[in-house]
Amino acid sequence: MKLDDKGILVVLSGPSGVGKGTIRKALFEMEGHDLIYSVSMTTRKMRLGEVEGKDYFFVSREEFEEKIKNGEMLEYAEFVGNYYGTPLKYVKEQLNEGHEVVLEIEIQGATQVKSKMPHAVFIFIAPPSLKALHDRLTSRGTESEELIQKRFDKALNEMHMAYMYDYIVVNDDVHNAAEKIMTIIKAEHARTERTIHGYEKLLEVE
Amino acid sequence: MKLDDKGILVVLSGPSGVGKGTIRKALFEMEGHDLIYSVSMTTRKMRLGEVEGKDYFFVSREEFEEKIKNGEMLEYAEFVGNYYGTPLKYVKEQLNEGHEVVLEIEIQGATQVKSKMPHAVFIFIAPPSLKALHDRLTSRGTESEELIQKRFDKALNEMHMAYMYDYIVVNDDVHNAAEKIMTIIKAEHARTERTIHGYEKLLEVE
Repeated sequence: MKLDDKGILVVLSGPSGVGKGTIRKALFEMEGHDLIYSVSMTTRKMRLGEVEGKDYFFVSREEFEEKIKNGEMLEYAEFVGNYYGTPLKYVKEQLNEGHEVVLEIEIQGATQVKSKMPHAVFIFIAPPSLKALHDRLTSRGTESEELIQKRFDKALNEMHMAYMYDYIVVNDDVHNAAEKIMTIIKAEHARTERTIHGYEKLLEVE
Repeated sequence: MKLDDKGILVVLSGPSGVGKGTIRKALFEMEGHDLIYSVSMTTRKMRLGEVEGKDYFFVSREEFEEKIKNGEMLEYAEFVGNYYGTPLKYVKEQLNEGHEVVLEIEIQGATQVKSKMPHAVFIFIAPPSLKALHDRLTSRGTESEELIQKRFDKALNEMHMAYMYDYIVVNDDVHNAAEKIMTIIKAEHARTERTIHGYEKLLEVE
């Protein structure tokens, strides 16, 4: 018996290079999940092979700024001259229909979500060690040492935001981490702040 | 990788007649659990078949009152002239060794635990309906209608304490309920208040 008939907004975040995307993919490959991935909106050009509404919703800069102005973005950021963000309407619709909605976003965006939807579940993905984080940033490609150091410094700063989150999950193993996240989502449905309304109805009925 | 090496104190409570004991038993019959049941202390006489240290720790009234005076009881209550309670020392030792300790106690005792160990996880067991609760109280035996009504009124009062708890789990099916509780315990280990200390160590090491 479910006392809570709404979906939960699950915010996966953490420092750059921690492996948020990989964990999110592992989560969606798990059996029997009822998760919906919130497709982001962007003003950048569509790339070869990308699909509108699957990889991103592609809009013009004017449309995006209009949406910001009207409060239609749950969170957004500008990155290398393009906007990226999460449209609020889609998220709310899915939650009301009882689906869990997963956002995989940067720390900055997560902070915006926190202020707009405080009942979301905030999960901080942490690296197993600082060395592991540095290794991941290094192994990404052919970037200069200076750029890697810059990214690492940024990631270190982001590491200190963990205390703002509800949960900390270490990415030592992608599947372990995904399973932990699934466990957290299930448990959250029983939390009193989510069940008390249904519980009060149960008391009223008779 | 575990950021949290301590056990969690799990408080199962709820109105009389909701089936706390049955759920606790189902929980301990689950495979692969690392739960320890905290044996209560009592001043009542040992009954035939009961085992010291398994069913209860049996002590004299003087010993029990001495423990209350010395702050050695995590919670206690007097019932039909006898004391029942949870010795604090055993619980703390088990938690420090990394075991989850389960208390199955009355609402009144849970309130005492809340003030002494605020980091415990408080799970309220709710009946699927008020009628189900009434039925359970009725089916218990041969008690008078008056006594049953008294118990039901008490249970109704206790139902309103749910908002003090961290989680509400409906006892519609014993095994579902036990599984939900296990899920909650697992998820709680990732909560930031429990992991932040280990996480900070992870940041320091390098």
